[in-house]
Amino acid sequence: MKQNIVDKKIMWGDLDSLGIVFYPRFYEWIDACGHLFFESINLNIGDLWRERKIMFGLAETSCRYFKPGRYYQEIRIITNIDALEEKTVVLKHSIRAKTNKTLMVEGLEKRICLDVSHPLDFKAIDIPEDIFNVLKNAV
Amino acid sequence: MKQNIVDKKIMWGDLDSLGIVFYPRFYEWIDACGHLFFESINLNIGDLWRERKIMFGLAETSCRYFKPGRYYQEIRIITNIDALEEKTVVLKHSIRAKTNKTLMVEGLEKRICLDVSHPLDFKAIDIPEDIFNVLKNAV
Amino acid sequence: MKQNIVDKKIMWGDLDSLGIVFYPRFYEWIDACGHLFFESINLNIGDLWRERKIMFGLAETSCRYFKPGRYYQEIRIITNIDALEEKTVVLKHSIRAKTNKTLMVEGLEKRICLDVSHPLDFKAIDIPEDIFNVLKNAV
Amino acid sequence: MKQNIVDKKIMWGDLDSLGIVFYPRFYEWIDACGHLFFESINLNIGDLWRERKIMFGLAETSCRYFKPGRYYQEIRIITNIDALEEKTVVLKHSIRAKTNKTLMVEGLEKRICLDVSHPLDFKAIDIPEDIFNVLKNAV
Repeated sequence: MKQNIVDKKIMWGDLDSLGIVFYPRFYEWIDACGHLFFESINLNIGDLWRERKIMFGLAETSCRYFKPGRYYQEIRIITNIDALEEKTVVLKHSIRAKTNKTLMVEGLEKRICLDVSHPLDFKAIDIPEDIFNVLKNAV
Repeated sequence: MKQNIVDKKIMWGDLDSLGIVFYPRFYEWIDACGHLFFESINLNIGDLWRERKIMFGLAETSCRYFKPGRYYQEIRIITNIDALEEKTVVLKHSIRAKTNKTLMVEGLEKRICLDVSHPLDFKAIDIPEDIFNVLKNAV
Repeated sequence: MKQNIVDKKIMWGDLDSLGIVFYPRFYEWIDACGHLFFESINLNIGDLWRERKIMFGLAETSCRYFKPGRYYQEIRIITNIDALEEKTVVLKHSIRAKTNKTLMVEGLEKRICLDVSHPLDFKAIDIPEDIFNVLKNAV
Repeated sequence: MKQNIVDKKIMWGDLDSLGIVFYPRFYEWIDACGHLFFESINLNIGDLWRERKIMFGLAETSCRYFKPGRYYQEIRIITNIDALEEKTVVLKHSIRAKTNKTLMVEGLEKRICLDVSHPLDFKAIDIPEDIFNVLKNAV
């Protein structure tokens, strides 16, 4: 199973008034980690878009929160494929405290393969075979 | 069943390179709509925090995406209570196109009642009876 | 002098750990208010982009902060043209407490007219005459 | 002259519909780089706040934009002190393309020393002597 690891430091602008991470920030981070995961298996989202008019749009996202993140805390985000189907791939992102590995947040992104040739009318399509195979090898 | 309605216009800064809403923005909006829902039933989150050291923290959030949001589109976010238990309340947020009412996004926030007296050690607690009753009347 | 007014409530997600607005949020708001100002004088930024491949990109932005914004505070953002030249227009945004009109933040956006026909090579151009006249009438 | 360097990759969520960085994101980054600069000279903003009730709040910020940032571009943010006075310190942040060093954005943050003992009434104060000396040595 392929996994991609991103280390990160929680900054002032990520926090709310309680001094803990404002939860939409976690989604910003896992979105970025999704792109980096694709990159790590040689699927560059920008190239897929420009060259083949294919995007992996979001069908569903979720996060469960176990421990709050605080100022200057070092975290590690580990991303892997959780499920793969004809049209969809589910990425799982585990956010852990870097020091003691405590699980802080677990996030899922169900991404659906889209033909975005027409900017105002995206269509769900089967994941093209070559891309499917790359994903399958990473499961 | 009590519901709170917020109207909003999608702005340039909410969009990604595909010209559709970058999904963490939806979470920013439903978080705000959660606060406004509490306010609409006379529970001011700021007061609960300052006066009683109680917060409704996030245990789990999720969104399903049906239709993308685009530049300058008018949307309506309808918030209501989806479930209420001893320690938790689930808010449901339906984001619809204002013109034709098409469902664009459905979001859930499972919020857990926390004693935040100790800034570095939040504790899950039963929702205090008076607050529970207010919530129950809004279900 | 044309001015556009936007009322807004400061929400939880706008705040930092001190309980005051995290300053990049002010820029998000004034960017949106810039678009709404253009709209108010019948220049829709989205249409200019799609139909004429023209954008008003940023050359320079600045904010001065006089009073912090806090949770649930009602603010008013007043936008007008501060300067107009061949290629550039400067928007001034005054953010005031809605209750007592205290000036909280004053922001400037110097926007430069761009030909964006080539996505990877934007070019500064003179503001087309018809658009310039619309802007001049709003000064 | 002390300088702090942060390398960063531009991600999908940082971009607008033109495929270039939405400008408030630059302010999020330079705010974080300001904190990291202070850290690099052994002034931890979190500790100053908790232990001495001192913060360096924003009096003024500005950015000039020379080149747009694009998807997956590697950038380098170089931070140093631009000016130091009794109550204020100005940080300069230069954002450059990592490959060819082209200057993309130059940002300034004028930060003012605040006594934040009273959460609802911050007061501008002279920078305490020990902190002033640390800053002076970094100019």
